[in-house]
Amino acid sequence: MDSETTLKQEIAWASHLSLQACLLPTPKGTSCANYARCVNQILQGLNNMQLWLRIPLLKTDDDSTDLDSNNLVDSWELWNSFRMLCEHHSQLSIALDVLSSLPSANSLGRWFGESVRAAIINTDSFLTNARGYPCLSKRHQKLITGFFNHAIQIVISGKQVHSLPKGSTDLASNHNDSSSDGVQRHPLRPYLDYVGYLYQKMDPLPEQERFELGYRDFLQSPLQPLMDNLEAQTYETFEKDAVKYIQYQRAVCKALQDRVPDEKASMITTVLMVVGAGRGPLVRASLQAAEETGRKLKVFAVEKNPNAVVTLHSLVKLEGWESIVTIVSCDMRHWDAPEKADILVSELLGSFGDNELSPECLDGAQRFLKDDGISIPSSYTSFIQPVTASKLYNDVKLHKDVVHFETAYVVKLHNVARLAPTQPVFTFTHPNQPTMKSNQRYKKLQFEIPSDTGSAMVHGFAGYFDATLYKDVHLGIEPSTATPNMFSWFAIFFPLRTPVFVHAGSSLEVHFWRCCGPSKVWYEWGVTSPCPSPIHNSNGRSYWVGL
Amino acid sequence: MDSETTLKQEIAWASHLSLQACLLPTPKGTSCANYARCVNQILQGLNNMQLWLRIPLLKTDDDSTDLDSNNLVDSWELWNSFRMLCEHHSQLSIALDVLSSLPSANSLGRWFGESVRAAIINTDSFLTNARGYPCLSKRHQKLITGFFNHAIQIVISGKQVHSLPKGSTDLASNHNDSSSDGVQRHPLRPYLDYVGYLYQKMDPLPEQERFELGYRDFLQSPLQPLMDNLEAQTYETFEKDAVKYIQYQRAVCKALQDRVPDEKASMITTVLMVVGAGRGPLVRASLQAAEETGRKLKVFAVEKNPNAVVTLHSLVKLEGWESIVTIVSCDMRHWDAPEKADILVSELLGSFGDNELSPECLDGAQRFLKDDGISIPSSYTSFIQPVTASKLYNDVKLHKDVVHFETAYVVKLHNVARLAPTQPVFTFTHPNQPTMKSNQRYKKLQFEIPSDTGSAMVHGFAGYFDATLYKDVHLGIEPSTATPNMFSWFAIFFPLRTPVFVHAGSSLEVHFWRCCGPSKVWYEWGVTSPCPSPIHNSNGRSYWVGL
Repeated sequence: MDSETTLKQEIAWASHLSLQACLLPTPKGTSCANYARCVNQILQGLNNMQLWLRIPLLKTDDDSTDLDSNNLVDSWELWNSFRMLCEHHSQLSIALDVLSSLPSANSLGRWFGESVRAAIINTDSFLTNARGYPCLSKRHQKLITGFFNHAIQIVISGKQVHSLPKGSTDLASNHNDSSSDGVQRHPLRPYLDYVGYLYQKMDPLPEQERFELGYRDFLQSPLQPLMDNLEAQTYETFEKDAVKYIQYQRAVCKALQDRVPDEKASMITTVLMVVGAGRGPLVRASLQAAEETGRKLKVFAVEKNPNAVVTLHSLVKLEGWESIVTIVSCDMRHWDAPEKADILVSELLGSFGDNELSPECLDGAQRFLKDDGISIPSSYTSFIQPVTASKLYNDVKLHKDVVHFETAYVVKLHNVARLAPTQPVFTFTHPNQPTMKSNQRYKKLQFEIPSDTGSAMVHGFAGYFDATLYKDVHLGIEPSTATPNMFSWFAIFFPLRTPVFVHAGSSLEVHFWRCCGPSKVWYEWGVTSPCPSPIHNSNGRSYWVGL
Repeated sequence: MDSETTLKQEIAWASHLSLQACLLPTPKGTSCANYARCVNQILQGLNNMQLWLRIPLLKTDDDSTDLDSNNLVDSWELWNSFRMLCEHHSQLSIALDVLSSLPSANSLGRWFGESVRAAIINTDSFLTNARGYPCLSKRHQKLITGFFNHAIQIVISGKQVHSLPKGSTDLASNHNDSSSDGVQRHPLRPYLDYVGYLYQKMDPLPEQERFELGYRDFLQSPLQPLMDNLEAQTYETFEKDAVKYIQYQRAVCKALQDRVPDEKASMITTVLMVVGAGRGPLVRASLQAAEETGRKLKVFAVEKNPNAVVTLHSLVKLEGWESIVTIVSCDMRHWDAPEKADILVSELLGSFGDNELSPECLDGAQRFLKDDGISIPSSYTSFIQPVTASKLYNDVKLHKDVVHFETAYVVKLHNVARLAPTQPVFTFTHPNQPTMKSNQRYKKLQFEIPSDTGSAMVHGFAGYFDATLYKDVHLGIEPSTATPNMFSWFAIFFPLRTPVFVHAGSSLEVHFWRCCGPSKVWYEWGVTSPCPSPIHNSNGRSYWVGL
């Protein structure tokens, strides 16, 4: 009780001083409930100050999955228990104590889905290089670089344990203004210099990543381009994605060559329809493909947004394409086409592939594709993987309703731990089967989290897609096969109303449905193992895409 | 998809006919997610009709707790998974198929915490008695009696498999109006007659139970007799609890005898103070004890409710106790007593013992108890046990807020499965230690659910108390030691915001705190194993008892 009183007094004082954060001592042993209760009480009435709980970066490595493994030490479990007891409070963060030996990479990965604010490196954890200076192991270096990437502060602590070689002070003093004034050099300066050196050594962020910095872990509602008309600015942004259009051009090239042999190139005119032409980028890519392959082309550009059609007319006039390109201001599902197409080109894909209703639109357009015609894309598949994403979870929770937990979000995932490899969910193929197969889907997936990860918390599922445009030309954002330097799509995030705790060695079973009603399409999802969750978004009550 | 369409059509028809309930087929296999998704969609838009999911009463018995036990068949897990996927919907209930062999009693017990509406007994499950009539095994009889007690309908199904002895029709026809009209007797009539016989054979409910029928599983806010003044009707009800006052009288007798030896009975006057005298029942019990033991008594009746004091004055006048009883209209915590007491008698106990702030009140009264004085009660202890209580959970959930999940309720528990024996939580002893020990408490408890129960769902904790009035005279509602025929207290129920699923053979770790502030006292509680829950009622934000 004395400790509790003292802690509350000290926090009150820190709070009075408007400190940004306060470091809390590491919970002792494995039972931290009483400490957590006390901290939770403090959090309920706290101003903006953060509380950083000090946690050693520790996990006894053991691959066995027998029951004894529950007794192994995993400091992440300590943290998880503490923060769950504190209701996942957004002002409770972590200061990691980095020790001289590190757990497995999978186990470390979990921390990048948590709110780690600082990493404390004790001087004991430093090695000595050939010249007598402190340095860190390769694995430590990689970890520190990861911390830099996640804006985690590095704190050096402990005593100076490296006795620097003679003359080193002068050498290092170039970087130390104060030493030239005769002021005593800080004894930990060599350690700090080394950490600074690691920071300097990092590769600069690619331009695209720099552009996307502001979007990191920022939840956005997915576009509804079918129900709503996109704004000019949105077209503007997406049209800049050169890589995407290069892939389309490659696909159209191959399709044209398959469709018309070289010897007949000058005789046969291929009818190509761009459905969802927008302001024209796919029309341009198609025409460039025709030019590249020397094929003759007749293009229909079908677009349902009358505003985009205005720009499209200007483009055709400006480029002098009037004789080749016919603009059709119509929803592809209702257009009465004057002839049938050899090639149907579309880009109606969302972050989760079918989530902007590409299947429904292309089923509608299929009427005017020849029986042996080609659809570009010819197929697309969605993928998911379970993630730890405490920041996203807290952002969704802020709304204090069920609706936001039953909504999928487009988001540039960064402060996230990907807990298992992705698995495919739904696949759509175009043209669709002769008997017009339903676009409803159901998939059950079983994820095995690598046993050296340890236990983990699943806040939801990251979703991606991969599309086969034509034959070997693909395009997508599934991490292991993602098209480089393409920026049109961020990932999608399906949250869980209650985070699911998965014990080390246990598997996670999840179900995804794609449901279709007369006026909307929606997903439902739920977990059945290790513990059953409610099915999210029943009847599309919270989140749906309008037809 | 055809099955789904058909199911939805049939439910719509049943709904159109305003049926009270519809029987749904048993989920096949262990994976019922897709079926659950479909039923969940139906539930979202259902009128008042109930859906009764047919579940076989089946659990492979196996006491081993090794990992293989996860593969054993336990139909409760099937049900649990289904209803969790359906968000614990209150219109989704159970029709149990009773088979010829029954699982263990512990495993059966779980169903009494669930919303079982019907039990379907196949004629195959009946035995044949010596006279050729259908009957049921002792264990089946006990189960059916349990069903009767929980208003669960019994349905007989199947074919007539017992060929009744000659003349039996006449014998049974006494109970069958239609047969006398020459109408064909229903072939299942003998089974129904047997079930009717079991019903007739049941012991009638004791008067007290009959009186409490209307309170079963009805959540009430606990009284705050310290902060609020009780109404006359409340005193009226509690004063009728004869058993309680008999126990007090016995305790006072023993205390008086210990205090004053027989030979000094006529010389020494014992000073007895009733603190919280209300309308006088403890004054009466004390005076009766004095009379019974032949001890001389001087009584101070201290009561802070000025309205009750009016009645108390009338009582003293009516009974002619003016020379013995002094009435003090004052809060015991602030009374300036003219002398010190030998015996302090109080009844300030709530369902959870200390939850009506008996410790704080008696600490305040202790000033005027002699150093060697006796407090009746001399101590009291609270107890909890984990329970399955789906009805209570749904009733709390109806409020759609956190506050109601962080409140303790007084409730006559009935539709509840008690999953493990009770364990003691907090004990208070009076008089309190010389250095006035704090009334804050913290207790960590570990519950082992019997392995033959199987997996279980914990919706919260049932709380009770037991009080030692004096030496071997006790009084309480802890189930294993409860004072018979006492009706002053129902149990208390501490809900959990998210029900906790406990795998077969796993243990449940729970923490309870009693916290004291300057103007209120409250409990906090939380689970740390198998999965950490949030700590409930931090800082008493949702539920507290005013000082």
